[in-house]
Amino acid sequence: MTENDLLNNLARRFPTLPPVVLGIGDDGALLQLPADAQLVTVTDMLLDGVHFRLDEVDPALAGRKAVAVNLSDLAAMASRPIAAFISLAIPRNLSRTRPGWIERLYDGIEELSRRYHFTVAGGDTNAWDGPFAINVCLLGVAITAQIPLRRDARPGDLLYVTGALGGSLNKGRHLSFQPRFDAMGWLVKNVTLHALMDLSDGLATDLPRMMLASGTGAVLLQDSIPVHSDVPDDLSVAARLRAAISDGEDFELLFSISAEESEKLRAAPGAFSFIPIGRVTEDRAILLQDAAGRTRPLPAGGWEHGI
Amino acid sequence: MTENDLLNNLARRFPTLPPVVLGIGDDGALLQLPADAQLVTVTDMLLDGVHFRLDEVDPALAGRKAVAVNLSDLAAMASRPIAAFISLAIPRNLSRTRPGWIERLYDGIEELSRRYHFTVAGGDTNAWDGPFAINVCLLGVAITAQIPLRRDARPGDLLYVTGALGGSLNKGRHLSFQPRFDAMGWLVKNVTLHALMDLSDGLATDLPRMMLASGTGAVLLQDSIPVHSDVPDDLSVAARLRAAISDGEDFELLFSISAEESEKLRAAPGAFSFIPIGRVTEDRAILLQDAAGRTRPLPAGGWEHGI
Repeated sequence: MTENDLLNNLARRFPTLPPVVLGIGDDGALLQLPADAQLVTVTDMLLDGVHFRLDEVDPALAGRKAVAVNLSDLAAMASRPIAAFISLAIPRNLSRTRPGWIERLYDGIEELSRRYHFTVAGGDTNAWDGPFAINVCLLGVAITAQIPLRRDARPGDLLYVTGALGGSLNKGRHLSFQPRFDAMGWLVKNVTLHALMDLSDGLATDLPRMMLASGTGAVLLQDSIPVHSDVPDDLSVAARLRAAISDGEDFELLFSISAEESEKLRAAPGAFSFIPIGRVTEDRAILLQDAAGRTRPLPAGGWEHGI
Repeated sequence: MTENDLLNNLARRFPTLPPVVLGIGDDGALLQLPADAQLVTVTDMLLDGVHFRLDEVDPALAGRKAVAVNLSDLAAMASRPIAAFISLAIPRNLSRTRPGWIERLYDGIEELSRRYHFTVAGGDTNAWDGPFAINVCLLGVAITAQIPLRRDARPGDLLYVTGALGGSLNKGRHLSFQPRFDAMGWLVKNVTLHALMDLSDGLATDLPRMMLASGTGAVLLQDSIPVHSDVPDDLSVAARLRAAISDGEDFELLFSISAEESEKLRAAPGAFSFIPIGRVTEDRAILLQDAAGRTRPLPAGGWEHGI
């Protein structure tokens, strides 16, 4: 397969879709956004051996994950996707050793593009002597004038997550999760959110980021943190809690909301689970509180990448 | 160095710059474009061993090149840059074996960001067991309502390049070239361009792409093709011509313009060189014509990447 063959294949798979007016095939893509559009851009790079194992993964799921983690970031920015730009570094022998692998990768991407109504408008493809790498840069537009940011948590807010945490890597949930657009869409329409982010590196890493940005702290209620059924149930209670806050790759949303406003969450359709896990404090410490009311510092953990 | 350390360093280096209203530090970047803005997005991934050699290159030049090739694409889309998104795959031992390498890489990027007035508004950074890779996604806005595209060449047009070709890899020009914003800006302001693209894979590969997109062919005047002084002058005339059309990584602009309109190029400031190299034909063949008027097919070549 040559680069031109791939480009032709992609141009067929991903026809231009407004606001994209020029997609794959020129030096760049052209978008004409509505006059008041707030453009949001996110990017994530996924690597063989770090985010999936090429030897084991269904390539459709690898492609899917590369786009889905970006979709999750867009959901956390209260935005919907419009155009993806996909760069691949492909091991030189891949098209010989695994014919069809790249096409399968794009099958997974195409599925998401249809479901979430965006196109692939450009990219770059190179062969090399290294392992497989994929970078996705995803453009979207905000669905609200006031995007809830990490810095918008306020003392007294309640903290919620949109689903159970932990064990994502054990059972493959990190490959097949659905980005939380539906829950986010309902929230933006029906309540006033304060802070919002997605949980990619684990609550123990991501919550401190939100609190730091907001200049606040938090108290988490240890018994309220929802432990996913993907976490082995023969672990101790302490180990299960650690998995829930530290495993990472949950891709649930974390948000803060005033106590008063949180009453409105009761009206949410049953398809959404909004689980209260604690509260935002003026004191900057991040604490875990047990059933007896005793607090201790939240253990560090999750995925703080050393580089 | 942790990922958070790097993010803090980058947030200091690259303050937000309108139309970016939210840069590094949240789940995504936020841009508020002027109402009539035409958004142009380009992306290129550069790989150790393919586009530079980590063992040999000044990291500032590697970072510079990764952004400059994208700037060249933007220039080819008659656009100016506004925001870059930079993803890195970093060999695990790099910060130990080459302390300061990543900071130096960003020095080269920062230099271009100041010169061309854009910011770095986001990115992703991961350590892995593979070689170094960098992806840049660059957003820009068109400086004209009618962007000259690859498909806009017309039979009878004259073909021009903005500088001499070949030998870019020999002498390091591929690391230090200036994207042709100045020449592009003058052209867009002063003449009506038809087709426009940048030469990254060599004239022998890129010209056919423009002609294919336009449904046209071309006759190149062999003796008019400007051979760069980076091409060794002890080569034969034939070998020097081959280098000029096939070496690639020239990052000059290729454009087509009507014969009448081309008269206006005489008024260009002496700093710009617009070199006529042939003409666009209705017949779709792409031919090379010698001084005696004999034609032969343009040899294939340049960088058609096998993947």
